[in-house]
Amino acid sequence: MNDKGMPDLRINGERLISSIREMGAVGFDPETGGRTRLALTDADKKGRDLLCWRMHEEGLDVKIDPIGNIFGVREGTDSSKLPLMVGSHIDTVRDAGMFDGVYGVLGGLEVIRTLNENKIGTRRPLALAAFTNEEGARFQPDMMGSLYYTGTVGLEELLSAKDESGLTVGDELDRIGYKGSETVRAGHYIELHIEQGPRLHAEDLPIGVVEGIQGLAWWTGEYCGESNHAGSTPMDMRKDALLGVAELATEAEKLALRIGNGSVATMGKISPKPDIINIVPGKCSFTLDFRQFERGLFEEGKREVEKLIAACAEKRGLKYNFRKAAEAPPVVFDCEMIRLAERTAAKLGLVSKRMVSGASHDAQFLSPFCPTVMIFVPSRGGRSHCPEEWTEAKDLENGCNVLLHSVLELV
Amino acid sequence: MNDKGMPDLRINGERLISSIREMGAVGFDPETGGRTRLALTDADKKGRDLLCWRMHEEGLDVKIDPIGNIFGVREGTDSSKLPLMVGSHIDTVRDAGMFDGVYGVLGGLEVIRTLNENKIGTRRPLALAAFTNEEGARFQPDMMGSLYYTGTVGLEELLSAKDESGLTVGDELDRIGYKGSETVRAGHYIELHIEQGPRLHAEDLPIGVVEGIQGLAWWTGEYCGESNHAGSTPMDMRKDALLGVAELATEAEKLALRIGNGSVATMGKISPKPDIINIVPGKCSFTLDFRQFERGLFEEGKREVEKLIAACAEKRGLKYNFRKAAEAPPVVFDCEMIRLAERTAAKLGLVSKRMVSGASHDAQFLSPFCPTVMIFVPSRGGRSHCPEEWTEAKDLENGCNVLLHSVLELV
Repeated sequence: MNDKGMPDLRINGERLISSIREMGAVGFDPETGGRTRLALTDADKKGRDLLCWRMHEEGLDVKIDPIGNIFGVREGTDSSKLPLMVGSHIDTVRDAGMFDGVYGVLGGLEVIRTLNENKIGTRRPLALAAFTNEEGARFQPDMMGSLYYTGTVGLEELLSAKDESGLTVGDELDRIGYKGSETVRAGHYIELHIEQGPRLHAEDLPIGVVEGIQGLAWWTGEYCGESNHAGSTPMDMRKDALLGVAELATEAEKLALRIGNGSVATMGKISPKPDIINIVPGKCSFTLDFRQFERGLFEEGKREVEKLIAACAEKRGLKYNFRKAAEAPPVVFDCEMIRLAERTAAKLGLVSKRMVSGASHDAQFLSPFCPTVMIFVPSRGGRSHCPEEWTEAKDLENGCNVLLHSVLELV
Repeated sequence: MNDKGMPDLRINGERLISSIREMGAVGFDPETGGRTRLALTDADKKGRDLLCWRMHEEGLDVKIDPIGNIFGVREGTDSSKLPLMVGSHIDTVRDAGMFDGVYGVLGGLEVIRTLNENKIGTRRPLALAAFTNEEGARFQPDMMGSLYYTGTVGLEELLSAKDESGLTVGDELDRIGYKGSETVRAGHYIELHIEQGPRLHAEDLPIGVVEGIQGLAWWTGEYCGESNHAGSTPMDMRKDALLGVAELATEAEKLALRIGNGSVATMGKISPKPDIINIVPGKCSFTLDFRQFERGLFEEGKREVEKLIAACAEKRGLKYNFRKAAEAPPVVFDCEMIRLAERTAAKLGLVSKRMVSGASHDAQFLSPFCPTVMIFVPSRGGRSHCPEEWTEAKDLENGCNVLLHSVLELV
């Protein structure tokens, strides 16, 4: 179907925001102003129970799969068609904002509520998904729900993952009653999400249409020189591991600027030893994070980062070791889905910007299996994973209307 | 007197080394290969008891002062003269080498043994000193014995200093039986010590004659920017506190090289927040240590370091704060004493080098009160405060012979 007969149909912005607030109260901590719903905790169970309740209210057929992914299916008239899936996740990091993940799930619910109250039937089924443990704040790997759903990682491996206290995913799923045995296949997938970056807010644009996810490479490494007395060791006789890593940090910044095209390089951790005010550090460990969307530049960047790690050490006569701690190639979303989202935004009078997601999302694992796209809305100051995470009501409403009319085109 | 009548007199190198080994066994840990005699612990008491026993054996009059400094006095024929004092300390850091401090005390004992076995009387008294808590590894401030001895810090303040478990210096002195009520005034002071730096070893020189102690300034500070997602925050929209501090580290190195004249600058500590691989650090704390011997350059260096702290933050739009955590002006030793040590080394056929101590020593507090000098011997690779600290037997013997003949010139 399409929305030819209902170009003026809109979601209910107040209802959307009130349901986001409702979920935001689960696990809320008035001390920090954030909420914490780490995957498979009691707070996560409360969030899941609330979501299932709201799904049942809208007449959805709720199915739970073996990793605890929740699917709410709104039947279509042609059951031979694979459903259009919309969704995201409802687990959070510690002291999170209200929007990350939740906006995609409850935005999808709001679309279904709008269809229901307007008695709009569809040919294809529409499925609302909440994937388990997207954040990875309690159990690693993150993206657990979509990794299982797409067969990227096996069930037994994921169920045996342990948290810091030794509890497994399998036991915790059993405990909170979310280890199911059903599933729902997706024909297309749309994920609505806050940007978690500063660009839309800085450029005052309402909608980002996401072309794909940056490739990501992480390294951990250590430089080894000599610990020496900070007073009695002349500058030219030092092998200062911290100075080597400090230079690596600033050179990695220059590398990202030189490769350009949205490349980002970050040293998030640095730790000298012995870490004493008057000792030249003999060792210094670090991490590096490099991301780039264009495959050729991603490969170039990875090579250059590894050359840089060697060069900054060798320049000072330091020994070094490093290893790749994680790698994910760039993901390119379906071009038809991208154009659909752009067209839809334009039809609603909303200026959109094609952009690449710097963060990872469940959508990147679904993308190889079905045509996928993401729709971004502005994050104030780019803040996320903190109580200061914020998106204006108008932006939430706009993004959800783009989702509604994209859905109408596909179902 | 002088050594005109005994130019061939030499200390007994084997006896010296055997007494250093004897003290090195106290608090020895076979696991680490180091020894630990933190001030006023049971191990320090054992070291003190051993020293006092060896002093009594040589007929010295042992006196303990209220902060636990130990003095062993060998009487002269003219009791109206102030003693010539030699010595250092016997407390250690954790897992220390055998030589730091101990060499100066037992080198002095070896000089006295040499005088005794050759039945050489002196006009002036000769006093052997072991100052309390030079290292400051358990109680702060360090240099406690010489700070009290010179009246630089009051007794009550020092006695009430607490270790991490809340025990005070006063209680621990009582417990180990080293709170005395006597003292010994010094007319001159000579401290024999390992260099704890790499210069003599690198230049293959046996003797360093110390002109004084570098001025020292310590800062602690913090840069504050914004914590952001490492994937979704473009390079040009970041306020990365770690990058600011990394640049400060390399700029401080350039500053020390530019000011030159032996200037050293060290960033010993750096700590980003939140210290997560995929978050741009919003905060980063650091320390800086700057040292220089020449007073004008020391003042210039301090001003430039503070300018640099501001400039590296402002360049990236970071907020910053810092404070001076410690400061000690340069100390210049007595030029007659310096010349005496140089002449003595030359007379013994030993090449000496004038040098500045980068480390602090008790001598710097005695220097304003009586003519003072220090004699350095090589430290292999400059290593100190670790089990790898090492000085060759021949170098230990040479340094002690320079002490012997310097003493003979002054007593």
